[in-house]
Amino acid sequence: MGKLLIVGSVAFDAIETKYGKTGKILGGAATYIGLAGSYFNLKSGIVSVIGEDFPQKNIDILTDRNINIDGLEVIKGGKTFFWSGKYHDDMNGRDTLETQLNVMADFEPKVPENLQDAEVVMLGNLHPLVQLSALEQMKNPKLVILDTMNFWMDNSWDDLLKVISKVDVITINDEEARQLSGENSLVKANQVIQKMGPKTVVIKKGEHGALLFQGNHMFFAPALPLEEVFDPTGAGDTFAGGFAGYLTQTKDFSFENMKQAVVYGSNLASFCVEKFGPDRLLDLKTEEVFNRLKIFKSLTQFDIDLP
Amino acid sequence: MGKLLIVGSVAFDAIETKYGKTGKILGGAATYIGLAGSYFNLKSGIVSVIGEDFPQKNIDILTDRNINIDGLEVIKGGKTFFWSGKYHDDMNGRDTLETQLNVMADFEPKVPENLQDAEVVMLGNLHPLVQLSALEQMKNPKLVILDTMNFWMDNSWDDLLKVISKVDVITINDEEARQLSGENSLVKANQVIQKMGPKTVVIKKGEHGALLFQGNHMFFAPALPLEEVFDPTGAGDTFAGGFAGYLTQTKDFSFENMKQAVVYGSNLASFCVEKFGPDRLLDLKTEEVFNRLKIFKSLTQFDIDLP
Repeated sequence: MGKLLIVGSVAFDAIETKYGKTGKILGGAATYIGLAGSYFNLKSGIVSVIGEDFPQKNIDILTDRNINIDGLEVIKGGKTFFWSGKYHDDMNGRDTLETQLNVMADFEPKVPENLQDAEVVMLGNLHPLVQLSALEQMKNPKLVILDTMNFWMDNSWDDLLKVISKVDVITINDEEARQLSGENSLVKANQVIQKMGPKTVVIKKGEHGALLFQGNHMFFAPALPLEEVFDPTGAGDTFAGGFAGYLTQTKDFSFENMKQAVVYGSNLASFCVEKFGPDRLLDLKTEEVFNRLKIFKSLTQFDIDLP
Repeated sequence: MGKLLIVGSVAFDAIETKYGKTGKILGGAATYIGLAGSYFNLKSGIVSVIGEDFPQKNIDILTDRNINIDGLEVIKGGKTFFWSGKYHDDMNGRDTLETQLNVMADFEPKVPENLQDAEVVMLGNLHPLVQLSALEQMKNPKLVILDTMNFWMDNSWDDLLKVISKVDVITINDEEARQLSGENSLVKANQVIQKMGPKTVVIKKGEHGALLFQGNHMFFAPALPLEEVFDPTGAGDTFAGGFAGYLTQTKDFSFENMKQAVVYGSNLASFCVEKFGPDRLLDLKTEEVFNRLKIFKSLTQFDIDLP
């Protein structure tokens, strides 16, 4: 069985959308990646850090989904990373109301020995040096996937380039791809980013789907058009978790198989946005996942006879 | 052979993008629709109006592509409709610099007798009452497709609803679909618009592709990701012309066949933006069209085995 190592935040989020407002709920990149990955046949483990204020019930949510937490460090007397934000009515933009780094400020990832041999490593959004430090503890991973964001482009450019040069796949949103590459066209942005190291570039376009590039190959998966987007929080990480999870399960890192991984990622992300926080990922049934994959197929597949 | 009637503007455009600036060049919705339609096996004719200032060489461009111009009225002493605009550097937004309605202000469409029996009618963006007047001259068309824009929603709401209630298909961009329906979600917008009359709703999302809805069926075709978008002018009309042209050629108005029509439309639109104005539609070879359809296939087709 394939093994997936997830490095990223486990956190509290407080979210406001036009549909309502949450208190401090379970959040963080590693959480969404882990929950999405748990829909595949694999072993997974999270490397992260939390404070003593993190309730046991949130930890249970992870372990109930068979996510190994040997690498989840608890800092005595520390407070867990906290983010709060409010989405605009169209659900595309959002304003950050508060960010408390707390224990995340001094995070030194320690990959437990039983996770160092994972075939697939998913480095969720974190300081590039933290991502690098975790990666250096791995024994010969077969596929390393990196997620990052504009904040590190603004503040830690050189470190970011260093970690980018060491990964196989980068997942990044469209605006970040433009910023990282200095190119407006996503095709050109991808070309520039491939030269930085990653052979595979995945550009997430939110409600407009995702592009997969490898060499000159290109694939596109739409986001499922939905009647309502309830809360977009975690959709990008859920996408990445579905992508990484499918690749870990199948152990096939070919471009053809990555196409399917992108569809699986987009599929799981379409559920994530249906409820607040990770709630929808917790009550999701395998049958629902497969039924929606059928919808994805009919949404995109066509038959044109070419001469 | 199927017959396609096109009602819309034949005009002068002056376009500025970051790549350069044109003088007064051939433009107009009917022009782009007609040129896109000319890549199919069909008979087509344009109903429109121009002034005496319109050069013969522009008319020749249409007739060289076998577009019937019996319905192209020339107003003695009149001046042709003129639009000029400047695109933002990201090519998504644009500012209109000048609009001169000229002969279009008093346009009364007259459908020649040899075009009144067309199976497919494509009503390009025009005043809704002009679209309605043309439609009323048709003898039992099998499929009527309407394009419109926000200007008529702001200024001629009741007339717009009247013509919308009489068509089979509406093509509209995403922001216009939201305005027309009052719904932010495109799935819901489509549901509201279907209730206004059209059984089929095509929502054009520019660089983000196009959605096709019919009843509860849904299909999505991406726009081809391009290294450069040189000039977006006419892309939406080219899309509509490809859509209408393919349906006219095949005379099959089923949802399954409309999927292919959307892909053909998106394919032709991807060429349109590669040069200024309609230039790329004039030197395009059938082989190039088919080669790019293959790229569309590999861009979107995947293989997932479902239980």
